[in-house]
Amino acid sequence: LPSRLPNVGTTIFTVMSALAAERGAVNLGQGFPDFDCDPRIVDAVSAAMRDGFNQYPPMAGAAPLRQAIAAKIGALYGHAYDADTEITVTAGATQGLLTAILAVVHPGDEVVVIEPNYDSYLPAIELAGGTPVFVSLEAPDYAIPFDRLAAAITPRTRLIVINTPHNPTGTIWRDADMRKLEAIVRDTQVLVLSDEVYEHMVYDGQPHASVSRYPALASRSLVVSSFGKTYHVTGWKVGYVAAPRALTAEFRKVHQFNVFTVNTPMQIGLARFMADPAPYLDLPAFYQRKRDHFRAGLERTRFRLLPCDGTYFQCVDYSAISDMPEADFAKWLTSEIGVAAIPVSAFYHEPHESGIVRFCFAKKESTLDEALGRLARL
Amino acid sequence: LPSRLPNVGTTIFTVMSALAAERGAVNLGQGFPDFDCDPRIVDAVSAAMRDGFNQYPPMAGAAPLRQAIAAKIGALYGHAYDADTEITVTAGATQGLLTAILAVVHPGDEVVVIEPNYDSYLPAIELAGGTPVFVSLEAPDYAIPFDRLAAAITPRTRLIVINTPHNPTGTIWRDADMRKLEAIVRDTQVLVLSDEVYEHMVYDGQPHASVSRYPALASRSLVVSSFGKTYHVTGWKVGYVAAPRALTAEFRKVHQFNVFTVNTPMQIGLARFMADPAPYLDLPAFYQRKRDHFRAGLERTRFRLLPCDGTYFQCVDYSAISDMPEADFAKWLTSEIGVAAIPVSAFYHEPHESGIVRFCFAKKESTLDEALGRLARL
Ligand SMILES: CSCCC(=O)C(=O)O
Ligand SMILES: CSCCC(=O)C(=O)O
Repeated sequence: LPSRLPNVGTTIFTVMSALAAERGAVNLGQGFPDFDCDPRIVDAVSAAMRDGFNQYPPMAGAAPLRQAIAAKIGALYGHAYDADTEITVTAGATQGLLTAILAVVHPGDEVVVIEPNYDSYLPAIELAGGTPVFVSLEAPDYAIPFDRLAAAITPRTRLIVINTPHNPTGTIWRDADMRKLEAIVRDTQVLVLSDEVYEHMVYDGQPHASVSRYPALASRSLVVSSFGKTYHVTGWKVGYVAAPRALTAEFRKVHQFNVFTVNTPMQIGLARFMADPAPYLDLPAFYQRKRDHFRAGLERTRFRLLPCDGTYFQCVDYSAISDMPEADFAKWLTSEIGVAAIPVSAFYHEPHESGIVRFCFAKKESTLDEALGRLARL
Repeated sequence: LPSRLPNVGTTIFTVMSALAAERGAVNLGQGFPDFDCDPRIVDAVSAAMRDGFNQYPPMAGAAPLRQAIAAKIGALYGHAYDADTEITVTAGATQGLLTAILAVVHPGDEVVVIEPNYDSYLPAIELAGGTPVFVSLEAPDYAIPFDRLAAAITPRTRLIVINTPHNPTGTIWRDADMRKLEAIVRDTQVLVLSDEVYEHMVYDGQPHASVSRYPALASRSLVVSSFGKTYHVTGWKVGYVAAPRALTAEFRKVHQFNVFTVNTPMQIGLARFMADPAPYLDLPAFYQRKRDHFRAGLERTRFRLLPCDGTYFQCVDYSAISDMPEADFAKWLTSEIGVAAIPVSAFYHEPHESGIVRFCFAKKESTLDEALGRLARL
């Protein structure tokens, strides 16, 4: 049986989580909270099930949830998406990303990917028959090289995939970056897929530069987000894609034959819980406290901290500690020191060594302290 | 923006459900129960959420659920799938179908489709770059023409998609049919995708001829099933795909970059609920009572009943009532008579009129009686 994805193995997140479990390491690898969600959201879903919301919802998502999403985007970013024709609820952000790519990328199309990149983008492009064109970011600042981004665009470019706040580097796009992207795509037919799953984790009072804020971008963009990240329920697998009507129409053609619809009681529960904006408005402060605590601890180790403006990931340079390649170092750190991390090299398509690994700080303070204690021994 | 799926519109199920809602019709169109699920399954999911099962499960599915699925298949069909390497939990059967097709069909491959067929198969084949090759079944018995099935196989055939119990016709494959399929594929490399989402709805004491029962087929098959159908929770969107190790490995490559994982608390709740086999063992009798009640009522109308050996669908010939094309008749029946149905022609790829529509009898007796009252006026 010839493989459709010959280069795909098990994701690095699964590999490192398994190794962490096997070695009893503190798992700061795969991105997920080790604390529980708000009990009110659990009650909201339980109530939805008891209220009988157990059969198919509408294909595009339960109306109250689509309306709550549109209202949130309007309030935060000033863009009025139409809940009926421009918002689609997905079975997590990953399903939104694959579906978007299958819906717009035709065989032979080029897709610009800014690496390091989340690991689902390339297999999705490969399944669609597209060709990835890479623009690489480099440590320590991982600044977007807009000249190279502009040069990567050809008449065959269908799509640029961007991601802010950025996994794995913790960088964010700022207003000036979005303006540059606007200028680059202005006279082209290029579409934008904007992965904004960490939209509510931007620190130090900075705004999240959602493409939704930029009409010239929003009109050609599919914006992907995730309730799992925002509400500490990564296992609930509910996200959404916001896009103008024509793009949403194409997105839904694939969506309806991929998952058809998304878990009804979760959607109803989330819609009810979203009526209170406090949980997502409080999220930057909640995670900033964790970031600051974790960074303060790391300052006392031999790791060198990279900036962290967003996401729940902190990258560190370990070159003062070891000259192992990143994948080896991450495994050694997990097995021997008892703290799992993710090698940033795993997010590049070719061998790429910078001596940097990623830690997830979406953890209880006691977990972070346990990890910091182990890391301080280095 | 050129479309990846230019021929796809809104699914017939969504169209007819919307029309039924607008006209206040009794909705016997889209297949879903109008009664609620067992409250114990709701409690099981609520407990799983309260127990903290809210973060990512393993990529292939929660281990207890995969074990429960493997145990069920072993007990019912005598095939021992390995829970770790041969069972994958999906976000509903539709996601399993698309993922299976994307995972094994390469551009240019031929896929044999037996029509009338469930509407997600063709867009999935189109997205994979495959070419469908049709074998048509004809009313009133919809028997499989095995000679034409054999003739449809060429050196480019990658996959045959079969579906038993069969939506929309309510027919089932019997042991002799499976033996014939075995003989047809024996000396080929052809794979089988077996859509068995109605596996627990086979009537009159007949066995379900799962491909899992036939080692020579199981070794080349991906078998798709659905908890939504079995437990009256079509909105929960949990299903599974069972396949031998090598096929599962390819399936999971696509799965992990499609949805990555499936709702954790639903999986844990389902695993706990599956400990008791009574709900699925009782299902044939439960639905047979509804089938018999509905058929008895239809006998008193001018519709002519087709056989119903499985599924929760009853097809009827309306040629004594009208010579309208099926789509028009279904709309007229919904709008004017107040009972929504699905035209069987919607399951064929080319215009195909037999004067037959499909009713769903997964409804409360009072709902069926209300519909029967309206239909008796014809
Ligand atoms: C989908 S599993 C990985 C979670 C995640 O987004 C990450 O760790 O980068
Ligand atoms: C996925 S919506 C349609 C439900 C169904 O399987 C049917 O009605 O045939």
